[in-house]
Amino acid sequence: MNLLLRILHYKRKNQKEEKDPLPSWNEGVAKSAIIDYITSVATKGNASYIPIEDRIATFDNDGNLWAEQPAYFQLYFALAQIKSMAKDHPEWKDQEPFKSVLKGDMEGIMASGMKGLMEIIMNSHAGKTSDDYRVSVQTWLETAKHPRFNVGYNELIYQPMLELLEYLRANDFKVFIVSGGGVDFMRVWATEAYGIPSDQIIGSSIKAEFSYVEEKAEIVKIPELNFIDDKEGKPVGIYQHIGKKPVFASGNSDGDLQMLQYCDSNTYPSFQLYLHHTDEDREWAYDRESHVGKLDKGLDEAQAKGWTVIDMKKDWKYVFPFELSN
Amino acid sequence: MNLLLRILHYKRKNQKEEKDPLPSWNEGVAKSAIIDYITSVATKGNASYIPIEDRIATFDNDGNLWAEQPAYFQLYFALAQIKSMAKDHPEWKDQEPFKSVLKGDMEGIMASGMKGLMEIIMNSHAGKTSDDYRVSVQTWLETAKHPRFNVGYNELIYQPMLELLEYLRANDFKVFIVSGGGVDFMRVWATEAYGIPSDQIIGSSIKAEFSYVEEKAEIVKIPELNFIDDKEGKPVGIYQHIGKKPVFASGNSDGDLQMLQYCDSNTYPSFQLYLHHTDEDREWAYDRESHVGKLDKGLDEAQAKGWTVIDMKKDWKYVFPFELSN
Repeated sequence: MNLLLRILHYKRKNQKEEKDPLPSWNEGVAKSAIIDYITSVATKGNASYIPIEDRIATFDNDGNLWAEQPAYFQLYFALAQIKSMAKDHPEWKDQEPFKSVLKGDMEGIMASGMKGLMEIIMNSHAGKTSDDYRVSVQTWLETAKHPRFNVGYNELIYQPMLELLEYLRANDFKVFIVSGGGVDFMRVWATEAYGIPSDQIIGSSIKAEFSYVEEKAEIVKIPELNFIDDKEGKPVGIYQHIGKKPVFASGNSDGDLQMLQYCDSNTYPSFQLYLHHTDEDREWAYDRESHVGKLDKGLDEAQAKGWTVIDMKKDWKYVFPFELSN
Repeated sequence: MNLLLRILHYKRKNQKEEKDPLPSWNEGVAKSAIIDYITSVATKGNASYIPIEDRIATFDNDGNLWAEQPAYFQLYFALAQIKSMAKDHPEWKDQEPFKSVLKGDMEGIMASGMKGLMEIIMNSHAGKTSDDYRVSVQTWLETAKHPRFNVGYNELIYQPMLELLEYLRANDFKVFIVSGGGVDFMRVWATEAYGIPSDQIIGSSIKAEFSYVEEKAEIVKIPELNFIDDKEGKPVGIYQHIGKKPVFASGNSDGDLQMLQYCDSNTYPSFQLYLHHTDEDREWAYDRESHVGKLDKGLDEAQAKGWTVIDMKKDWKYVFPFELSN
């Protein structure tokens, strides 16, 4: 190859690399479908063009932007909180689900069911002002390590999804998290992790009260359920918070199905994306039978409706950001 | 004056006009305080500098961004809805507050108290999908006229406040409405009126449900109270929706006092603004004794704490946009 050809080749190669908005995604159906959709709706003059103010994208968090195995990460935080609060609650050592928490008996905790888990999570907020709660989540994040990967939980975010969020924003989409997880828990770290402002994070919540004592204004968290942002709750949460249907919705479990259906009903061209966990080596493989992040009805509906399904093993070149530096 | 002097004078005059971010405000304490604050916190290197992501501004709507006399405008909408629904509700003609609504008896309506008003407003949503409700508000806005000014209700927005919203945005503030009014009602018209996206509008709400029947995804509104975004509700609504304290808060009644206190507790330099209705000729004059938009405790606290109070009559060159073309 002569010099001119070599320069042209190099230039072309670099231009191509510069232009790839999703470098951690392998070429394939999922990557092409995403790029085709975003290009199509963001290009003026196209029949499928969507005005900027209606480019709303909604992403589930657990198992979709970060990992959720072997249990939701917020549960690990709540367990640590319960343990640190136990000295003020002598009654907990005879009372489920706290008894199992204090013994570190994960099976006993799971046996307490959704009611027990909710009780654990609500008590991890109890009696705290919003500022106290923030500090306790921050402290936990700085010290706790994931049992399998031995890194901080907020290092287990998905590199390909970070690129997708950025690509959407570069095309003037307004990106929201819509998660069953606690909104106050996510807001502590999700802005830094994903570049999503706190007011664009929607999640489950407990009640809160305004306290104004001796000119000190505070929000005090009340351990009573306010809103569950899961299943049918997701479209309701989107409607209450955003007031518009998304045109792009991304999830990984049956808890996201109603959000994808809601998005699919948009009169604009819309895009539904499911992440299928198929990679037990780099992450986990689970779907129809999983207790965490069950994907069963959603998988059938995705196939029936032609929604895009990411096969993690096949479609992702990297999973976690820490792989990039290896 | 020779030609050169005349040119210089003209240039200076126009430069000055170009630079005035609040042309509908008369020079005075309120205007100076606003400009000084915004300039100070948005200038890098200043001790009072606030990072862009924390420049949160919250504005009440009724009586603050648009008028609220002789009664909240949403009430006029709800009354019109009740009348149009009456043929399907024969029982209403003997049942308060509907009986008074159908007779057009405003005193009877007011006598039904907060409970009666809530019943009227909730029933104006009843049985409607989110799309139906939007259409009914739009239709009303296009046809209904304000009893005193005989213009559409959405023409009774305040020109000086439009300039303030724009000035804040030009300085990278993220501006939110935080109103006791219904969020779904505001979202129909407030984006066009104020340039505020629907997800930056916080208000009172009724419950909603997701309906998915024969692959048709809809939000159905339920006539049960979800959240009252007034008084102590305002800081709670801000916390739940935004997750951050505002640095700039603007209201006009005692219903905004807690929002201003919450803002005042920000560790960043913060700004509290009250609009005092003092102009019975161009708008209305009311404060401590008013049934709508009562400003009593708030006025005392503003004076005690040195918050900025706009004297509408003195501080505003124009009130409504339609005055500009006169």
